[in-house]
Amino acid sequence: MAGQAQCATHRIRGRVVTGFVSIVGAGPGAADLLTLRALDRIQKADVVLHDRLIDEGVLDLIPATAEKIYVGKAAGNHFMPQAQIHEVLIQQAQSGKRVVRLKGGDPFIFGRGGEEMQALQAAGIAYEIVPGVTAAQGCAASAHIPLTHRDFASSCAFLPGHLADEENNTLNWQTLAQSGQTLVFYMATKRIDVIAQALIAHGMAGNTPAALVQNGTRADEKRWVQPLERWAQQTPNYTAKPGLLIVGKVVRCMSTHKLPNER
Amino acid sequence: MAGQAQCATHRIRGRVVTGFVSIVGAGPGAADLLTLRALDRIQKADVVLHDRLIDEGVLDLIPATAEKIYVGKAAGNHFMPQAQIHEVLIQQAQSGKRVVRLKGGDPFIFGRGGEEMQALQAAGIAYEIVPGVTAAQGCAASAHIPLTHRDFASSCAFLPGHLADEENNTLNWQTLAQSGQTLVFYMATKRIDVIAQALIAHGMAGNTPAALVQNGTRADEKRWVQPLERWAQQTPNYTAKPGLLIVGKVVRCMSTHKLPNER
Repeated sequence: MAGQAQCATHRIRGRVVTGFVSIVGAGPGAADLLTLRALDRIQKADVVLHDRLIDEGVLDLIPATAEKIYVGKAAGNHFMPQAQIHEVLIQQAQSGKRVVRLKGGDPFIFGRGGEEMQALQAAGIAYEIVPGVTAAQGCAASAHIPLTHRDFASSCAFLPGHLADEENNTLNWQTLAQSGQTLVFYMATKRIDVIAQALIAHGMAGNTPAALVQNGTRADEKRWVQPLERWAQQTPNYTAKPGLLIVGKVVRCMSTHKLPNER
Repeated sequence: MAGQAQCATHRIRGRVVTGFVSIVGAGPGAADLLTLRALDRIQKADVVLHDRLIDEGVLDLIPATAEKIYVGKAAGNHFMPQAQIHEVLIQQAQSGKRVVRLKGGDPFIFGRGGEEMQALQAAGIAYEIVPGVTAAQGCAASAHIPLTHRDFASSCAFLPGHLADEENNTLNWQTLAQSGQTLVFYMATKRIDVIAQALIAHGMAGNTPAALVQNGTRADEKRWVQPLERWAQQTPNYTAKPGLLIVGKVVRCMSTHKLPNER
């Protein structure tokens, strides 16, 4: 059957064990935005390694019999170094367990799922990748902003907001500003002014609408919309919670839509 | 609760009715890549309008009591014009039904979900958007190609392959070729040579690896990997089934991975 996890056998000290790692996308926040396959893997897990930003509602789905290992990272403050996460994944699988590595959003859009996969490949561990709804999709759906639209943008790009920081400014602003794409910056809250300034400096119209979405798809979702030129002048003073910045004409589509608590 | 559908009341010829439209992403193919919320909406639907590319396994989840309306489009051969889809959505909702508009992948990444939302807004119909795993994510997970990776590409972009066609070539190839992003072209099968030629002509290295994935996440998934320069020389002669082209250094990560039927 499509999507069925396959288990490889390993021989450890003469004993045959079947360990398997599922690198699972937990979706953008709300527990019911998990896929059916993700839920299946979580429910069958012997051990779950999870990040900081996984919603309580998702963590509640982990069976009581499964061990939970927290490997989350606070921004700039790694709780468990990446190499150690790899080690734990490998050790748990080699001991014969069904391991779920639960990652916010989609495992292959930011979040270093690719690196974890490579570590498993190198160690000869059987694994699978279970995709998930990424934050950009969750926030777009929730805010009623289509990421592509025939009238506004034929394509979209997902970008890491922290690469706008002065010490590692490696984004190609010229091509971004002129791409005509809907641009979605992850982890944008703390550098929203710098992102807006860079886009304008490289030719994007200052009146391009941009929406900041925090806690997208969660009960406490918040949104702010204003033109880029106003984001550029603003010192971000929102909470330190990660937020997503959606930049482009598509943001106009949300104008008639209000949050339930705004009605 | 987050994600609970809200129903607005409408008054039609003096009668109060509560119609509601859920524009639902059906995911990339395999039925278990549907979200829990999507399944909930399908199971509660009075009527489901669905596209051509929705997997049988997903259609099987529609309750027998629900009316199914096929509004699919064969490539270049619209079964029901978009304006008529809008009309049917509005009429069904105004008659008080719980309507599910089931779209392949994510409703807001290609597929005109934004236009359908705007038609509902204009008609004053209550609606929600239920995000879904898009084909790029499904194919990437299945082919073991991370869409972003710290060593290869810090960001990714989703692009409509048909805009590479001569009659509507509106993609900004210059910025794409120099973006450093992982580029994912939807509907790429029939113009894979043109896409590869355009990227190389605008500066992308001819040895950049590119993977074509057809029927991603389904039992009959197929993949081909070769450098751009070879795709550029090739007359695409695969079946007319839509395929996804993933272009970028990240494609190297799949080298050690084989399909179950290749083992």
